[in-house]
Amino acid sequence: METGTGTLARKVAQGDRRALAQAITLIESGRPDHRARAEDLLARLAPVAAGRQVLRLGLSGAPGVGKSSLVEALGLHLLGQGLRVAVLAVDPSSQRSGGSLLGDKTRMERLSRAPGAFVRPSPAGAQPGGVARRSREALILCEAAGFDVVLLETVGVGQSETGAADMVDVFALLIAPAGGDELQGVKRGIMERADLTLVTKADGELLAPARTTRGDYAAALRLLRPRAEDPPGYPLALAVSAREGTGIAAAWERIAALAAWRRDNGIAAGMREDQARAAFRAEVTAAFLARLAADPALAERMAALEAEVAAGRLLPGAAAARLVAAVMTGVGA
Amino acid sequence: METGTGTLARKVAQGDRRALAQAITLIESGRPDHRARAEDLLARLAPVAAGRQVLRLGLSGAPGVGKSSLVEALGLHLLGQGLRVAVLAVDPSSQRSGGSLLGDKTRMERLSRAPGAFVRPSPAGAQPGGVARRSREALILCEAAGFDVVLLETVGVGQSETGAADMVDVFALLIAPAGGDELQGVKRGIMERADLTLVTKADGELLAPARTTRGDYAAALRLLRPRAEDPPGYPLALAVSAREGTGIAAAWERIAALAAWRRDNGIAAGMREDQARAAFRAEVTAAFLARLAADPALAERMAALEAEVAAGRLLPGAAAARLVAAVMTGVGA
Repeated sequence: METGTGTLARKVAQGDRRALAQAITLIESGRPDHRARAEDLLARLAPVAAGRQVLRLGLSGAPGVGKSSLVEALGLHLLGQGLRVAVLAVDPSSQRSGGSLLGDKTRMERLSRAPGAFVRPSPAGAQPGGVARRSREALILCEAAGFDVVLLETVGVGQSETGAADMVDVFALLIAPAGGDELQGVKRGIMERADLTLVTKADGELLAPARTTRGDYAAALRLLRPRAEDPPGYPLALAVSAREGTGIAAAWERIAALAAWRRDNGIAAGMREDQARAAFRAEVTAAFLARLAADPALAERMAALEAEVAAGRLLPGAAAARLVAAVMTGVGA
Repeated sequence: METGTGTLARKVAQGDRRALAQAITLIESGRPDHRARAEDLLARLAPVAAGRQVLRLGLSGAPGVGKSSLVEALGLHLLGQGLRVAVLAVDPSSQRSGGSLLGDKTRMERLSRAPGAFVRPSPAGAQPGGVARRSREALILCEAAGFDVVLLETVGVGQSETGAADMVDVFALLIAPAGGDELQGVKRGIMERADLTLVTKADGELLAPARTTRGDYAAALRLLRPRAEDPPGYPLALAVSAREGTGIAAAWERIAALAAWRRDNGIAAGMREDQARAAFRAEVTAAFLARLAADPALAERMAALEAEVAAGRLLPGAAAARLVAAVMTGVGA
């Protein structure tokens, strides 16, 4: 943290991976003085990132689905195509379990060692909103650093996977092979967001179950409404094997084709803009609520009103009007 | 609108259907003086509603799925069981098309005429947040009026159906029969919320397709994660016919069983509390944003910041912090 933000920004923009790692550590820090430096750094690098053309690919799945193996296999495939790849692996469970970050990094050892690649496991922290903000900021840093593709890997726990879907160009859901009637750990809302469903571990004894699962998801996807702005054939389900490398090239082909289609039809830029606007609105309400929480008198007032609402003694709209009137006239300030 | 709110509240609490209709008209009015009376009325009736035990059932589906016919058939079935039934039919398209409200009412003619029933079609209005608030308020009025079951019928357009899911005890998704590969107009996110999927029009030539569709949805539902707090067997898919009355009793049995299970296991009360808290938070941010929009200087500031964010020149978090700082220190007041 000794480097000035101007120097750090220049090094990141030059593609210096150590500087990038240092910059991400800075934005992840909770210290107020670090936060001020992070904001300064981001203000310098956001225009650089905006000038690059980077494909942001989100990959989400439940623990044990084989995310890291697939991400490494895909990353190595992309390197083989001459593309520079950054991986941001967000693990919401890491704060609790403590151990899986190092494990993830070790599992991506080959990719981590490759000169054109950058692998960064990140603890997700306690606040879902905090995860979203830090991931958005880390994406910008990776873009500024000149990578062609950024893989945002998230564990499908709670709301984090739909958060990831809101900040990428293409979003893939990872599913493990299972018997036809076996329950899968897929959160229902996430299927809404997935451009691709990738059935992992399609090798050896799991090849046949993987094919069945792929067929089941393909059928389920046909029952759902396709997005009006997508080309025919999407969303789709594919079977892949990280171990044997099968299906990886085909999956990438479909991902790149979708991204190119969205770019060529003016959809990609619109998606990014919509994502930025939505993020701004979410940040506005988050900042407003954070200010409320930081003011003891207002926080107490809000908690009391919420308790009245929960007990059915006060209606949500009437309670909200009282609170906001108090805030905007500075009663609690 | 001549009646005083005290008298009106008393009549609604006594189950007077004319007074209930008048009260709903009052909460739907956009006039500020009506709004003040509506707030007063709701403040009087919320405690009455809180003291009743009412099953709120949400039914959503795309236009043409046969919602009104099914709601009427279900309503008549409930009357036959000795239950008093209120129907709130929210139609987001009514403001545009203008004609469907009367049509709906006519289609539920038998139910409308029954002494134990109340049928109220409502235009959804322009604001999605406004729909949610008015529906919540109309539900409270119906509860205060002593109905045993309130059916909240919403058209599956945009966000309104998930809004409905956030204010009922049991939520059913209605689907029309279709060939196995035919695309259905189901928004994916809504499957997340449905306790039951009801395949309508399971009669005559559509009986076989309805059975196929039911099987397809049952299979799709098995791929999704069941809710931890639900009894085994839910969510489920059933085929029903409003014309022949088949499946209606079975569907109600499963709905009532789920509601009873949630009540007996302390889940129903928690759901209502969570819904109230979530509604309060949504209302707080809505009220905050409404205040922003109502202040020309702040609205202009927000639009300018959002444009900067959309163009990639400013990060969402930094822009939001600037806006909220301006608001909370009264710069724009």
